[in-house]
Amino acid sequence: MIAGDLERLIQLLSRLPGLGPRSARRAVLHLMKKREALMLPLAEAMARAAESVTLCSTCGNLDSHDPCGICRDPRRDPKLLCVVEDVADLWALERSGAFKGGYHVLGGTLSAIDGRGPDQLNMGRLLERVTGEGKDVEEVILALSATVDGQTTAHYISERLAGSGIKVSRLAHGVPVGGELDYLDDGTLTAAMKARRPA
Amino acid sequence: MIAGDLERLIQLLSRLPGLGPRSARRAVLHLMKKREALMLPLAEAMARAAESVTLCSTCGNLDSHDPCGICRDPRRDPKLLCVVEDVADLWALERSGAFKGGYHVLGGTLSAIDGRGPDQLNMGRLLERVTGEGKDVEEVILALSATVDGQTTAHYISERLAGSGIKVSRLAHGVPVGGELDYLDDGTLTAAMKARRPA
Repeated sequence: MIAGDLERLIQLLSRLPGLGPRSARRAVLHLMKKREALMLPLAEAMARAAESVTLCSTCGNLDSHDPCGICRDPRRDPKLLCVVEDVADLWALERSGAFKGGYHVLGGTLSAIDGRGPDQLNMGRLLERVTGEGKDVEEVILALSATVDGQTTAHYISERLAGSGIKVSRLAHGVPVGGELDYLDDGTLTAAMKARRPA
Repeated sequence: MIAGDLERLIQLLSRLPGLGPRSARRAVLHLMKKREALMLPLAEAMARAAESVTLCSTCGNLDSHDPCGICRDPRRDPKLLCVVEDVADLWALERSGAFKGGYHVLGGTLSAIDGRGPDQLNMGRLLERVTGEGKDVEEVILALSATVDGQTTAHYISERLAGSGIKVSRLAHGVPVGGELDYLDDGTLTAAMKARRPA
């Protein structure tokens, strides 16, 4: 006997990652209590973003403009291009403030199991951006997951760029800042030991 | 460098219970990938529910109509009235299908710490529904939390209805169906032992 409109809202909300039916019901009751302050603004923000935000045709970022704000920013170094799997990774790097070049969002990794080859990814556009006529990219930084698929993808890109004269680098492995050794997996510890540096 | 429209959507979503900034970002990326199938319908469902759904002025339930579907349903027993704290509890009881009378949603419990007295709850309307002229409620079932505040509230309502000739009952305490004894708290085990029944 939940009202149809609420039932539908719960059903749609429960399809978001991280929300199940129970938390969707809680969220809806919360929204109903904050109708003016949260529910209406959220509905409007969602409709507006769905309308205005698109994929950047250059790098695959999400933005209200195409090319996106990062691709259009003249202060960013056009010689550096950072390859990421997903927009979430681009956002994470932007939050860190550690990188001031351009990005390229692949939209996933190569995966033998899921049957994703280079054609299913934003890969052709990457090679074109890097090796095309009159391009000034000097270094491609592969910021891909340290998973089998991520590393396969990194290897594939390295191979494709071999001999082009473009430097290809990867993020360093090591102990996360603030991380306790005791909780780290063996692979990370081994990598951190191998890549040890003078103190 | 997240687009303003996305930033605002993430900020609003992260105010839902159970979603923090990280899960809100994940949810927004998921929405952007399912723009037609999920994002636009969700925005619309949210706007529609905000518009159409109101509190039932009789029982405090949320519905597109006032009085709500439960209050208007002639098949429900008007002699039984189940008092709950919140609409979520009403929904839980409705899902169980165990109750076919009317409801009364208090909107919380009495709380000395949070300074909530009877006037902050939907309490006057409850007494009016139960003891007013020409009412046919014969039993009030207190389906309140087994917390200090819930039980204080239950006690308050029992006191107010004492001498009115109306039967007041509470939900039984006991072992949850499917629950393992080993994981149960002492209070529940004690209550279940006291209320033991012939096998």
